[in-house]
Amino acid sequence: MEKIKVGVIGASGYAGAELVRLLLSHPNVEIGGIYSRSYTGKPISDLYPGFQNVSYLVFDDEDSVIHNSDVIFASLPHGISEKYAKKCFDANKKFIDVGADFRLYDEEDYKEWYNLPYNEKELHKESVYGLSEIYKDKIKDASIIGNPGCYPTSVALAMYPILANTLQSDDHIIIDAKSGVTGAGKELSEGTHFPTINEGFHPYKVAQHRHTPEIEQSLSDFAKKDITVTFVPHLLPVNRGIISTIYCKVNPEITLEAIHKLYCDTYIDHKFVRVLPLEKVSDLKYVTYSNYCDISLHLDKRTNTLIVVSAIDNMVKGAAGQAIQNMNIMYGFEEDAGLNYIPPSF
Amino acid sequence: MEKIKVGVIGASGYAGAELVRLLLSHPNVEIGGIYSRSYTGKPISDLYPGFQNVSYLVFDDEDSVIHNSDVIFASLPHGISEKYAKKCFDANKKFIDVGADFRLYDEEDYKEWYNLPYNEKELHKESVYGLSEIYKDKIKDASIIGNPGCYPTSVALAMYPILANTLQSDDHIIIDAKSGVTGAGKELSEGTHFPTINEGFHPYKVAQHRHTPEIEQSLSDFAKKDITVTFVPHLLPVNRGIISTIYCKVNPEITLEAIHKLYCDTYIDHKFVRVLPLEKVSDLKYVTYSNYCDISLHLDKRTNTLIVVSAIDNMVKGAAGQAIQNMNIMYGFEEDAGLNYIPPSF
Amino acid sequence: MEKIKVGVIGASGYAGAELVRLLLSHPNVEIGGIYSRSYTGKPISDLYPGFQNVSYLVFDDEDSVIHNSDVIFASLPHGISEKYAKKCFDANKKFIDVGADFRLYDEEDYKEWYNLPYNEKELHKESVYGLSEIYKDKIKDASIIGNPGCYPTSVALAMYPILANTLQSDDHIIIDAKSGVTGAGKELSEGTHFPTINEGFHPYKVAQHRHTPEIEQSLSDFAKKDITVTFVPHLLPVNRGIISTIYCKVNPEITLEAIHKLYCDTYIDHKFVRVLPLEKVSDLKYVTYSNYCDISLHLDKRTNTLIVVSAIDNMVKGAAGQAIQNMNIMYGFEEDAGLNYIPPSF
Amino acid sequence: MEKIKVGVIGASGYAGAELVRLLLSHPNVEIGGIYSRSYTGKPISDLYPGFQNVSYLVFDDEDSVIHNSDVIFASLPHGISEKYAKKCFDANKKFIDVGADFRLYDEEDYKEWYNLPYNEKELHKESVYGLSEIYKDKIKDASIIGNPGCYPTSVALAMYPILANTLQSDDHIIIDAKSGVTGAGKELSEGTHFPTINEGFHPYKVAQHRHTPEIEQSLSDFAKKDITVTFVPHLLPVNRGIISTIYCKVNPEITLEAIHKLYCDTYIDHKFVRVLPLEKVSDLKYVTYSNYCDISLHLDKRTNTLIVVSAIDNMVKGAAGQAIQNMNIMYGFEEDAGLNYIPPSF
Repeated sequence: MEKIKVGVIGASGYAGAELVRLLLSHPNVEIGGIYSRSYTGKPISDLYPGFQNVSYLVFDDEDSVIHNSDVIFASLPHGISEKYAKKCFDANKKFIDVGADFRLYDEEDYKEWYNLPYNEKELHKESVYGLSEIYKDKIKDASIIGNPGCYPTSVALAMYPILANTLQSDDHIIIDAKSGVTGAGKELSEGTHFPTINEGFHPYKVAQHRHTPEIEQSLSDFAKKDITVTFVPHLLPVNRGIISTIYCKVNPEITLEAIHKLYCDTYIDHKFVRVLPLEKVSDLKYVTYSNYCDISLHLDKRTNTLIVVSAIDNMVKGAAGQAIQNMNIMYGFEEDAGLNYIPPSF
Repeated sequence: MEKIKVGVIGASGYAGAELVRLLLSHPNVEIGGIYSRSYTGKPISDLYPGFQNVSYLVFDDEDSVIHNSDVIFASLPHGISEKYAKKCFDANKKFIDVGADFRLYDEEDYKEWYNLPYNEKELHKESVYGLSEIYKDKIKDASIIGNPGCYPTSVALAMYPILANTLQSDDHIIIDAKSGVTGAGKELSEGTHFPTINEGFHPYKVAQHRHTPEIEQSLSDFAKKDITVTFVPHLLPVNRGIISTIYCKVNPEITLEAIHKLYCDTYIDHKFVRVLPLEKVSDLKYVTYSNYCDISLHLDKRTNTLIVVSAIDNMVKGAAGQAIQNMNIMYGFEEDAGLNYIPPSF
Repeated sequence: MEKIKVGVIGASGYAGAELVRLLLSHPNVEIGGIYSRSYTGKPISDLYPGFQNVSYLVFDDEDSVIHNSDVIFASLPHGISEKYAKKCFDANKKFIDVGADFRLYDEEDYKEWYNLPYNEKELHKESVYGLSEIYKDKIKDASIIGNPGCYPTSVALAMYPILANTLQSDDHIIIDAKSGVTGAGKELSEGTHFPTINEGFHPYKVAQHRHTPEIEQSLSDFAKKDITVTFVPHLLPVNRGIISTIYCKVNPEITLEAIHKLYCDTYIDHKFVRVLPLEKVSDLKYVTYSNYCDISLHLDKRTNTLIVVSAIDNMVKGAAGQAIQNMNIMYGFEEDAGLNYIPPSF
Repeated sequence: MEKIKVGVIGASGYAGAELVRLLLSHPNVEIGGIYSRSYTGKPISDLYPGFQNVSYLVFDDEDSVIHNSDVIFASLPHGISEKYAKKCFDANKKFIDVGADFRLYDEEDYKEWYNLPYNEKELHKESVYGLSEIYKDKIKDASIIGNPGCYPTSVALAMYPILANTLQSDDHIIIDAKSGVTGAGKELSEGTHFPTINEGFHPYKVAQHRHTPEIEQSLSDFAKKDITVTFVPHLLPVNRGIISTIYCKVNPEITLEAIHKLYCDTYIDHKFVRVLPLEKVSDLKYVTYSNYCDISLHLDKRTNTLIVVSAIDNMVKGAAGQAIQNMNIMYGFEEDAGLNYIPPSF
């Protein structure tokens, strides 16, 4: 089979480097080039020694990367990727934005939470929100993908069956999420200095995190009505992974068994979503380094509160892995091509 | 000043050993003896080498320990401490139960959650729930103390000002709690094997944890009405500490500033409860190894949800420290005697 | 291409489960069966939930596993695998022992360090020590492989170029090694309880570890003379990986550059051994989950001491990975088949 | 008893903040002021929230701090403390330098390893190397103390009995040391970013660390002859603590029991040095947060190599704790005043 050419813009950050790592093992692609503002001319193995003797890729200039690629992944701070999307769109190349700029359909939401306007309004009309399992049909034909954020992925997959079937009895949902430190990126900060994090634990951006409108956009779309969330992320002293513990009031007549069956049925053809048997709980341990999203279901009958616990690797299903899954869908590759790594368990 | 004699029953477990460690530095006490079913005759430094050359205490038989002590701390699995309480009570000695057997006032709750009856019903009438800051007046004159559980301590201190002032707009409260692994005790188990926990994270006993009725007992007592909770604990890959993130609906007219002032006023004379300035968040890092309970306050105005985040060291304020604080109250010592360790921050 | 059938005896332990995990992704094999004394009839995903929805393998009885397989891997406590080796040998099947029983050529060494005799002396004459890079030629034709221990692998690859070229000026070598906790296995113990290990660090079996004679066997074979080692392993609070820091006196006239060139030349055709550029240091971080062995070289000119630092993943290159590499060599597969995972770097 | 006034210059770094924390609980001192170049006017609890509600100390200007104090501790990067030492000396105040500038008696060593000259040569003649247990008599009367580095403390206490009694058979000693990340300070760097360190492990500055001449100075002084060391530090993924594993050839006729007795005798009157019983091993776990130095002894009879393993908390016995111990000696306080914290063991 002929291979397509892929480029990575912003390949020096964690999500970008993870894209490169996964793409290097993908059977249907070849890397057309990688770009990072600050490292042109440097080999990627200088930044990430895991690549040593494995890949001799060197950071190239952005135009060459785009020119040499059929599809371009961008992993950049918000506010920057529109210009790359434009270049790619104009050159008739697919663009998958792993950053935040193409996730919100409503410009007002983006303005409110990111303090920036959309400059290329037309492009945003072209773009599709890339939650692979749910929006597969739209993704197939898209030329621009807004790849979901890590927290929103873990929440949307966990809540889709409930909301799409209107089983919630209250449209306010509480999300207590916990993420590993790679979620904070490669940038140095007081908050990610080892002695600060290690043996510590705390919430941050309480009810103010920018993933809030993205989560509400998905949940409301599933429910066909406005869903509001209280979203509180925490920083875990681990490298990778997100656990979202989600609290949702449900109608008293529904049983946990019925809910479990609904989840199993919903995801039966989606290998990356694993609905755990009842009595089991989702754990970071069994998804890290893989593209799986594990979901466990629990019902507090005393209060009619459904508790959904989802686990993903923030770098894989929460970023690079799902981006590749979207590429696979766009190009008609096997949906799991390059994504078959089995989580190590220890 | 003359010193009182203290004994520790169950001194080989984590909470028991922490009691010994803290009591050894307490200015008003002397250790009358320590007991542990399995280690009679062994020095405690064999089990906990931190004591080496510091304490030459040897595990003694239970009767000697009780005989040689004015006050006895018991740190035992549930269902065992009544007989020690009886012995102590009959011998006119104070008894502080760090375990679960004297926490629930209603025997029906104990039967439901622990599957055991109360054998010494009279004793339970004598016992006082030892949440130091809130029940100080009763603790003063008690001869038996049911020392609060770790999670219930972190929740009750966090919610007292709200509920005692009826600021909640819903009597169902969601508690998402996270504990370090010492909370699971010294007993070996698959679930606390290093490679299982390290780089992992997961909830456990979802909405089924035995601390649920204890939490509801306190919150309902504060509110003077029934409060129900959905309580979901998680296991953190750290040694010590609990963060409880608590979600409570409040009336829309109340401001975060007013709530903050209420908390500050409530705890102004209680040095171990630190209400953080607004915008700060509680973090394990700044309470571990100390008797402090940090509380941070956050309001999701979009949904009228108050988020209270409390942090304690599960071994200190959540067990041994609060037990000593109760002893200090009972004997009229300085409330912070032996408990003045400043948290290290790194 | 037709696939061979592989069986795993002792598949419930860490090394066994890692074998299963890696073999499931191997392009040239199919799993003929897995066996574990205590779990017959249970799915492996019950023990290791990472396998959920990925593999439905169930632990089978030992005879079926052997019968259904062309090559059998055994990962067992010492003293047990001879009987499986015999069964396989008699049935004309290849046998790769990941445990300790076929590593020492001299029965006296085995008796001294393991307190057991060899019962099947003839089998030991058939067996080959499976240090893939060094003994490839013998491995090719072997029917029984004694797969090297984790520490010995990290040391032998690190010291081969020096000793094979007689650059050492003293035949006593000091090895200060540090291993992650999976090296201690799945068995529960005080020493691997999370709160004991986390934030702790200590040596163990100082100068008494059973890998000592295995290390000396290799080093002496390389040097064509007796090499003695002082070997001190330590337990690191991480899941995976070994760093061996090795101190070896060298002749004063040799330069670090010359040594570096020798290492590069020696391993030029061995992709899994990565000789790092001068000035770089080996780090667990860049080899974990992969089959790579990183080697960095340092010279203390003040004392003519060469310091070689090697890094491997104890579960992969130190166990399951090298075992598969040996199978690849035995069957003429690509040497890296099934072993191409790129280390994540974060 | 009247209290002395103490000042801390450089109180914003880890060692400085640890000094403040320990001094706040010291029975014989009062804090005269704290200084840090970048934080004048800020409360220390802003930087280290553990101090919240505990200490209201605010960073003051340097002259006030010196003026208000009887003894001044300085914890600064190298090359800066001479000027403070001068000011203090001229004002007739004691000066304890926790940094590197007063540790090396020989200016040539300082020049070689720190690339700077001594500007205040007279002051260096006044200063005493503050290894408390060994140089107590000189410390008593000193007005300037060069407080030992963390690694040098762990090595010197471990090797003093051997070298002072000339039991070594080779004057080259190998030191393989491992330190927690607080040793790298509060300054942000790639190398101390959480995802880089966590689940990683590696040596650094191999045979080039600046503590090398300081270690050799002490060991040579003990031995009354030149001792050279190969010193290789590693970075452990823990917050605190140093383990030094030290390899020293000894005469074949000496027994481990004799060496053990010698160590016990040497340190019998020094409570902070704990010589462990034979068969036990030193572990970070049992010294962290305390001023103890644990030493375990092991003999590889096959090679006549003595292995001494020492454990300290780098922030306490390796910095702030020993500095306070020196102050105690200088002022005739109890040597352990303010330093009696019992290590937690978990």
